[in-house]
Amino acid sequence: MRFTAAERAAMADALALSEAVRGTTSPNPPVGAVVLDAEGHRVGAGATRPPGGPHAEVVALRAAGTRARGGTAVVTLEPCAHHGRTPPCTGALLDAGVAAVRFAVADPTAQAAGGADVLRDAGVDVAGGLLAEEAAAGPLRAWLHHARTGRPHVTWKYAATLDGRVAAADGTSRWISGPGSRAEVHAIRAAADAVVVGTGTVRADDPWLTVRGPGGEPAGRQPLRVVVGTGEVPGGARVLDDAAETLLVRTHDPAEVLARLAERDAVDVLLEGGPTLAGAFVRAGLVDRIVAYVAPALLGAGPAALGPAGVSTITEIHRWRVEGVTMSGEDVRISAVPAGSEGGS
Amino acid sequence: MRFTAAERAAMADALALSEAVRGTTSPNPPVGAVVLDAEGHRVGAGATRPPGGPHAEVVALRAAGTRARGGTAVVTLEPCAHHGRTPPCTGALLDAGVAAVRFAVADPTAQAAGGADVLRDAGVDVAGGLLAEEAAAGPLRAWLHHARTGRPHVTWKYAATLDGRVAAADGTSRWISGPGSRAEVHAIRAAADAVVVGTGTVRADDPWLTVRGPGGEPAGRQPLRVVVGTGEVPGGARVLDDAAETLLVRTHDPAEVLARLAERDAVDVLLEGGPTLAGAFVRAGLVDRIVAYVAPALLGAGPAALGPAGVSTITEIHRWRVEGVTMSGEDVRISAVPAGSEGGS
Ligand SMILES: NC(=O)c1ccc[n+]([C@@H]2O[C@H](COP(=O)([O-])OP(=O)(O)OC[C@H]3O[C@@H](n4cnc5c(N)ncnc54)[C@H](OP(=O)(O)O)[C@@H]3O)[C@@H](O)[C@H]2O)c1
Ligand SMILES: NC(=O)c1ccc[n+]([C@@H]2O[C@H](COP(=O)([O-])OP(=O)(O)OC[C@H]3O[C@@H](n4cnc5c(N)ncnc54)[C@H](OP(=O)(O)O)[C@@H]3O)[C@@H](O)[C@H]2O)c1
Repeated sequence: MRFTAAERAAMADALALSEAVRGTTSPNPPVGAVVLDAEGHRVGAGATRPPGGPHAEVVALRAAGTRARGGTAVVTLEPCAHHGRTPPCTGALLDAGVAAVRFAVADPTAQAAGGADVLRDAGVDVAGGLLAEEAAAGPLRAWLHHARTGRPHVTWKYAATLDGRVAAADGTSRWISGPGSRAEVHAIRAAADAVVVGTGTVRADDPWLTVRGPGGEPAGRQPLRVVVGTGEVPGGARVLDDAAETLLVRTHDPAEVLARLAERDAVDVLLEGGPTLAGAFVRAGLVDRIVAYVAPALLGAGPAALGPAGVSTITEIHRWRVEGVTMSGEDVRISAVPAGSEGGS
Repeated sequence: MRFTAAERAAMADALALSEAVRGTTSPNPPVGAVVLDAEGHRVGAGATRPPGGPHAEVVALRAAGTRARGGTAVVTLEPCAHHGRTPPCTGALLDAGVAAVRFAVADPTAQAAGGADVLRDAGVDVAGGLLAEEAAAGPLRAWLHHARTGRPHVTWKYAATLDGRVAAADGTSRWISGPGSRAEVHAIRAAADAVVVGTGTVRADDPWLTVRGPGGEPAGRQPLRVVVGTGEVPGGARVLDDAAETLLVRTHDPAEVLARLAERDAVDVLLEGGPTLAGAFVRAGLVDRIVAYVAPALLGAGPAALGPAGVSTITEIHRWRVEGVTMSGEDVRISAVPAGSEGGS
């Protein structure tokens, strides 16, 4: 299948639109859509609205109005064929009279899949796979992981020195990473459904765990804050303020933490815990991606980024695969996935 | 000053020629030279021969013969004006009758400097600064550092996991980095004058510290092997074999180690020690460059890459600046220089 240049450009735009709504759509996927008219001109675009609101295709079709007739809908995920909280998108596409549908990734869920066939049976020219890897490794990554495994996708994010330390010998740690990385972390948080730490981090750093802008002002939407551990969270801790909701999970079992988060419709989880909690998640095989900010600095003493993770000898080492390396201000940002896993899983 | 395209291309070649002889010229600088005839055609090229042998300009002029007359000599370092073990290069250039000389970096040493003026006074068209940064940060880096400070240039090279560990909890460490990085290390060693470890690394790993090819065969020239520490080196240790010379330095003082190496004409030193020795060098401010191979792997326990380096609280952190990040096989190779230092120092 060959795609036209206009279709490719539309898909790239649809992906950017979907990236922008990450963190606001769970448990629904963040999807983007662009509608081209019969001449290939862009006449509508949109992304998934928060749960209960319209899906991306519907937003884009409404913007296009009658100009969609005979045109092409370009969508990052195969249009759904089922009636959930909203009517099926296949129906909306047929009602609008589009002649063709292009999508990136097929819907793997049992209840929503089959949209492509429904459209084809109704005479629409349907093709999938356009920028599929970009979609699966990018905006749809966490949602696809959840759809396949039933578990939220966990990104462990940390900042460490070149010698792998997250604090000095006396426990002080502000700031190891530079301002560039710290600003980036707020953007990553903004796209997450939940941010998770252990009680140790709350006691040591008393973090807010909220999404804030450059001036320190809190963002409108905030991810769920989650504190894991059996000990007390001090009464005046910042995570207990009103800026966002906070869930205390009194366990040491990472699987239980994820089960609790899944109950709350969390799909995309950011683990910002210290070495103890991170070690427990790694040991349990429940970290799906690492985002490490390596600061060009040396400490020579102090806690390492990762605590006990079940490895006692070199043959038991946890192997990962580097997915991307970029500079983040003065720091090196390394993203990695478990060795053997495919991109986007 | 504008340089011609032919002069630029010649300088790029001269730099590559000089890079290839790194490790064989100390205490002399690894220099490269290309001679262009009066029409700008390349008629000779060469690089510094081992100590006692001819300098780069002389090698290139010999290859060019009479075709050098009226031409241009393109050299990575300002031609020397002094009579050392070999006659001054300025004399050779004048004898050959070149009309112009282009060089990258000025010679900072008191005895050899002034070559440009000697040539100018004799009527030669002389200009410096062509690809100067590339030369100063690249092939001439260690030699320039030595010329300025009197100390050998020290590159600390290590391989660690993402969580900064160089061995598992039980001390096992083969292999943390991948085959790509390990092959690269032999190339780095080949360009060094000396390779330094502590007695702890000898006891733990029993390394050869030699330059070997892909099949394990030793290279012709080997850097000096250096073991630092007051304890015994076991009689059967591989560093005591005949493959290369080995110096035992019975001290804990990094400055004394470098003084001993300077006596032996070492200019470019590769520190491959464990965390203890590396910590002592960092604390003493005697590491000029870090080359870290970060393997996408996690251990969660075991020694960190750097031991005590005089930092007890975060404000005392040693700050560096990232100079380059590349992939080395599966590993991330990060090179860094002390914060505030200029490239090439
Ligand atoms: N640079 C970074 O990216 C970063 C990020 C976060 C923290 N840090 C640093 O990390 C340090 C805090 O480290 P930490 O390890 O104490 O923090 P942590 O991992 O966030 O919290 C540890 C606590 O979590 C609880 N816990 C949850 N699951 C556990 C399990 N499976 N096993 C054991 N305990 C479990 C325990 O508390 P209970 O006793 O209450 O059960 C434990 O004491 C601070 O210095 C902080 O600055 C750095
Ligand atoms: N991944 C890598 O890149 C890499 C490279 C090298 C080693 N390693 C690992 O590092 C571990 C060995 O670590 P290590 O720290 O023992 O190795 P090391 O730093 O090479 O050797 C330490 C020894 O050096 C001597 N020493 C020299 N200067 C010193 C000073 N200023 N202060 C204290 N001691 C000084 C001491 O021996 P005396 O008692 O004899 O004086 C000390 O025990 C092994 O697990 C090895 O696999 C990893």
